[in-house]
Amino acid sequence: MSEHLRVDGARLWQSIMQMAEIGATSKGGSHRLTLSDEDKAARDLFASWCAEAGLTMQVDELGDMFARRSGSDEEQAPVGMGSHLDTQPFGGRFDGVFGVLAGLEVLRTLNDHDIGTIKPLEVVNWTNEEGARFAPSMLASGVYGGVFDLGWAQSRRAVDTGATLLDELGRIGYHGALPVHEREFSAFFECHIEQGPILESAGIPVGVVDAAQGFRWYDISLEGFASHTGSTPMVGRRNALLGMAKVALAVDEIAGEHAPLARGTVGSQVTVGPGSRNVIPGRVDFTVDLRHPSAATLDAMDAALRGACAEAAAEIGLKLSLAQISDTQPVAFDADCVARLERACARLGIENQRITSGAGHDACYVAKRAPTAMLFAPCKDGISHHESESAEPADLEAVCNVLLHAVLDMAGVG
Amino acid sequence: MSEHLRVDGARLWQSIMQMAEIGATSKGGSHRLTLSDEDKAARDLFASWCAEAGLTMQVDELGDMFARRSGSDEEQAPVGMGSHLDTQPFGGRFDGVFGVLAGLEVLRTLNDHDIGTIKPLEVVNWTNEEGARFAPSMLASGVYGGVFDLGWAQSRRAVDTGATLLDELGRIGYHGALPVHEREFSAFFECHIEQGPILESAGIPVGVVDAAQGFRWYDISLEGFASHTGSTPMVGRRNALLGMAKVALAVDEIAGEHAPLARGTVGSQVTVGPGSRNVIPGRVDFTVDLRHPSAATLDAMDAALRGACAEAAAEIGLKLSLAQISDTQPVAFDADCVARLERACARLGIENQRITSGAGHDACYVAKRAPTAMLFAPCKDGISHHESESAEPADLEAVCNVLLHAVLDMAGVG
Repeated sequence: MSEHLRVDGARLWQSIMQMAEIGATSKGGSHRLTLSDEDKAARDLFASWCAEAGLTMQVDELGDMFARRSGSDEEQAPVGMGSHLDTQPFGGRFDGVFGVLAGLEVLRTLNDHDIGTIKPLEVVNWTNEEGARFAPSMLASGVYGGVFDLGWAQSRRAVDTGATLLDELGRIGYHGALPVHEREFSAFFECHIEQGPILESAGIPVGVVDAAQGFRWYDISLEGFASHTGSTPMVGRRNALLGMAKVALAVDEIAGEHAPLARGTVGSQVTVGPGSRNVIPGRVDFTVDLRHPSAATLDAMDAALRGACAEAAAEIGLKLSLAQISDTQPVAFDADCVARLERACARLGIENQRITSGAGHDACYVAKRAPTAMLFAPCKDGISHHESESAEPADLEAVCNVLLHAVLDMAGVG
Repeated sequence: MSEHLRVDGARLWQSIMQMAEIGATSKGGSHRLTLSDEDKAARDLFASWCAEAGLTMQVDELGDMFARRSGSDEEQAPVGMGSHLDTQPFGGRFDGVFGVLAGLEVLRTLNDHDIGTIKPLEVVNWTNEEGARFAPSMLASGVYGGVFDLGWAQSRRAVDTGATLLDELGRIGYHGALPVHEREFSAFFECHIEQGPILESAGIPVGVVDAAQGFRWYDISLEGFASHTGSTPMVGRRNALLGMAKVALAVDEIAGEHAPLARGTVGSQVTVGPGSRNVIPGRVDFTVDLRHPSAATLDAMDAALRGACAEAAAEIGLKLSLAQISDTQPVAFDADCVARLERACARLGIENQRITSGAGHDACYVAKRAPTAMLFAPCKDGISHHESESAEPADLEAVCNVLLHAVLDMAGVG
């Protein structure tokens, strides 16, 4: 019977749309930063849906939420599904949300048809995937995966108010008692929009993600000397903005030298001081993001970045400070999980292709603790981290059906 | 008798140091933005000193303060002296303040020696010279000089709170009744630190300023597309920060092509959006400042700037918006005023040289209504608009003595 089972695509879509109303922006996106009032509202809504579905909820020390549906053998580790409910500043409606609510839709579907599983099932909302309000990204799943220290994660400070993550967990009532590391999964699946143009261009509704590229994040400061724009001769100026300009152009070139897989970006988080139009920029603080699926190529890009920064600083007489704040290794997902996703596609007759993730995801860190794989849905024009982020209901439904069948395969019916 | 008259240099220095305590910064500078609580405190202190010196105070519709010492012929227009009490963000202790308090010191000295003048004398504190909290700079003197409209000036908004200049005048109690345009001066003298390296390098204590270079200010926006740094291919990106980087480097080159007098700077007032390290910069708002003593050269620099912006925007696929928000023409100061300043130097045996101002000053706009000239004092390392701005007490005293004698020459003793 279960091979004819299908999720309710309309319910999935409607839930995503309802969630998008929390922190909705004027241009159709969502602005729901980690542990903000909007994040709390999203968590509360998700918790109320889980309660309606008869799930039990546990919250860990980092605010991660685990909604559980019992299995017939509670001794076995659950099959996990999920992603995150936080968004980028003025981000989209699908990034993260789809993965959490696809998991919930799977459980709702099993409830509708009164189908039990042998292994328990859990839907997870990981805290602070985006890294926009608290750096770095994928913070809680990183602690779970053993990449970050728990205390360090809890002491990260919000870029807006300066409050710690622990303070903000307490403030919104999501500082749970469950130890982060106690959770075990027999397998973990994350659904996500692709955030790139590949599936849409190919006209294929489902990407089976077998790998994720590594990335490195840097905090860079260039310090020169702030003085009057009119009376300071051009010769001898120490203009920090010119240094940043040279680095931004160099980062673009470095990525170009390792085309087409490499990515290199000075991000949109830039502070120029002291903040007056007739004062020469005395200091610029900015970030760099380098990505590639090969660790060796990332090493070469890292060296080129450091060289470009040192050269710009020396040329203009600036003081350089460069800190690498994250080093996320390339990930190869679990071959068995990937195979089960492909078998589910075949069983359902859904066209699919293998794909490498260009972005980091919670699943990349969960993969350090449990057999893990991901599913991608196409997104419009490959656009993500933007209010215009968009996806087709039929594609999300197809991905969710693949998830349903892979999870049943992994957990066992009965 | 009056030819032996000298100001009290210690009192002048002590007044400057006392004023610097209002909005004092940890690194020895002052942070006293236009119409802030600190600006109000500085105005109140100046007003109390004027009252102690027996001066009458009038405040005009833009908050300009006029402290008057009567002359024996009150029918004649006063000889004006002054500058401004507002500062740059984390600016220095001397920029502006010296010119106001040098004027006050002249009047205090005349009081000490019970010397009357035929023409009345006035010390002026012009509102919002810096332009850091309300753009553009020299706003009130610009209205006085007929360059800006009164209503437009009053409706300018603060970059921090968005309040209008008129609101803020009311809030701090400095919205006066005096019509801006009613004031007439028989002559006007402004003392200021040079804000450049010329006098210090030459070892000369007094610069007689006979001209000021023109400058143009621009507000520029580049709009591209914000998307994910990992999954967005390098080809086809519309990264607004790369556009700004190209323009910043081009502006530096444009000034270099018209060395040594030209100046060109992307100022330290830059906003990059949407503000996340893993989102490609979708929009950058920044400012450009071009300066030269020749209007024709400024025209050429303006054309080169517009060309560089258009080229960067076209190359990256950005939407360009460029608004020139100020066009301050080069100024030639009044020959008679300049001659009287040089005669005063000669009488006092003070070494001096003629100099062109690299920065704009209130005197540049006052010059449109009254015979005007300026005096410069050397400042340490030519540094200004910075907390480390510094000047020597002996140099400030020398400049103030020249002011005293030029004013007595212009106003007549009796």
